[in-house]
Amino acid sequence: MIIETIHLYEDKKDITLTTYIVAEQGELSEVNPRPAVLICPGGGYFNCSDREAEPIALQFAVLGYHAFVLRYSTYTEGKPDLPEFGKPIPVKKDRTHPAPVRDIGKAMLYIHENAQKWHIDTDRIAVCGFSAGGHNSAMYGVYWDKPLITDYFGVEKEMLKPAAMILGYPITDYIFLRDTEKAPMDKEFFDNSNHIFIGEENDSDEILESVSPARLVSESTPPAFIWATAGDNLVPAQHSIRMAHALADKKIPFELHIFEEGDHGLSTATQAAAIAKSQINEDVAQWITLAGKWLEKRFRLDMPDITPFEAMMANK
Amino acid sequence: MIIETIHLYEDKKDITLTTYIVAEQGELSEVNPRPAVLICPGGGYFNCSDREAEPIALQFAVLGYHAFVLRYSTYTEGKPDLPEFGKPIPVKKDRTHPAPVRDIGKAMLYIHENAQKWHIDTDRIAVCGFSAGGHNSAMYGVYWDKPLITDYFGVEKEMLKPAAMILGYPITDYIFLRDTEKAPMDKEFFDNSNHIFIGEENDSDEILESVSPARLVSESTPPAFIWATAGDNLVPAQHSIRMAHALADKKIPFELHIFEEGDHGLSTATQAAAIAKSQINEDVAQWITLAGKWLEKRFRLDMPDITPFEAMMANK
Repeated sequence: MIIETIHLYEDKKDITLTTYIVAEQGELSEVNPRPAVLICPGGGYFNCSDREAEPIALQFAVLGYHAFVLRYSTYTEGKPDLPEFGKPIPVKKDRTHPAPVRDIGKAMLYIHENAQKWHIDTDRIAVCGFSAGGHNSAMYGVYWDKPLITDYFGVEKEMLKPAAMILGYPITDYIFLRDTEKAPMDKEFFDNSNHIFIGEENDSDEILESVSPARLVSESTPPAFIWATAGDNLVPAQHSIRMAHALADKKIPFELHIFEEGDHGLSTATQAAAIAKSQINEDVAQWITLAGKWLEKRFRLDMPDITPFEAMMANK
Repeated sequence: MIIETIHLYEDKKDITLTTYIVAEQGELSEVNPRPAVLICPGGGYFNCSDREAEPIALQFAVLGYHAFVLRYSTYTEGKPDLPEFGKPIPVKKDRTHPAPVRDIGKAMLYIHENAQKWHIDTDRIAVCGFSAGGHNSAMYGVYWDKPLITDYFGVEKEMLKPAAMILGYPITDYIFLRDTEKAPMDKEFFDNSNHIFIGEENDSDEILESVSPARLVSESTPPAFIWATAGDNLVPAQHSIRMAHALADKKIPFELHIFEEGDHGLSTATQAAAIAKSQINEDVAQWITLAGKWLEKRFRLDMPDITPFEAMMANK
């Protein structure tokens, strides 16, 4: 496996693409090229959580796909500490929308440019994200062929096209988010998160709609696998439901799984991504198996129809 | 993840230990130290198969454990090509028993020596192997506290102790192997394999018993998870059954799963470890889930009993 962390920009050192390239040599390289999954961890656009980074990449590597973790533009510029809430936080212009979604475009182009070296099947690159990273992935799903992305990069659309989206407890509708009642601590969290992500003006329908993937689904939005927990009090399941509804309206293939129990931010919901016992949930952890089966319909690896003995001998 | 390939000896460059160290930094490193699994791929003691190397290591990494792949002493010295059968093959003395099992001891010591750097819980290191690698792992399980290993290394037994064994379609009984009828091609394979592994004299009960873990289980043999397929015509399931019987006789905890269908050498039995469609088998692939659950009883990660919100805030 080739693990390498690449700086996507000269001037923003915290925006990185970490590779998890499988089967780069030896017997298994006969099956190359392979599909890939590009992962955006969550973190409220403040930072990118480690719990939704490598443990997720390894899950896709285990399925036989290449994986990439993208640490996109966030407020803390790669540091783990949140800014202190309660004080006015200055907006950082290079960290607000559309910087994070354009980082995905940048990563897609980088992967395309290195596809031969890394044995990537560029027709089969999925985006995958969690919470704010799920929002960012869904934003890419609705904007990848729109001027916000295409005019910015000025390349062929095919270089930017995602084959699928995998969204874990994403935020998809900022108007719904504005209009729902929230507990005081959650309200403070989102007031700050929206401020640093959308900017000073973050309350108008027009602006909020422009960052709401559930309101922007079109015929060119890729197929999606969406999962959430009904017990999520921070990003309620309605965000996933609204995204699924919009996909259904446009007849985009999708799969939706909402587990009854489980807090926000469970990642794999296994001990591999947990730092507290409460982040382990055997029911919720089934999403990985479900996502793997869904993805396999599109990403199944192509290999010859020979016996194991023939395969063994062909290799000796 | 730290992936690094280490040469365990100055003079045998093909004997390597490849690390898959998880959670070496960031949020998840709070859960360190972690248990580890040391993996021996199969290959009839001719070579070490890639199909039973990295794909297996990733499976254990996904469970939250560190993993290591050991490429132990084999006949081809790291090259993929088998020697030509039908011609007399010269024995290579540094490649015969006990070189391969001592390589496991060497790797165990190396892991112990680097335990602090890699955050290894040295009380919880499992050995895991497939086919000939399963044999080698089982050999280590029965010899780790015997003079063959302890006198050779001259260290405290605790430095060498394996916490568990995970054995996939292992060879465990060379007397049974000698005495069972075999198809002509299988016979040729084993005649050559036994020759290069055991040496010129490889037909006496005494010598064969000394390399038959199913005949050497003692009170100090570690708990084992064993799996095989009844459809395996190369290494019949009786090898797994005999090992389980011996463990039961000594009241060593064990778990045995024999799936009805499936050829020899399926590794994970998923597309990630396959180079032919016939190496994918959804029934057999369940062994990974079963092994994970079994291992978790011994290797469960220790973490605090706090809410996900508290965990998130503690980290910010």
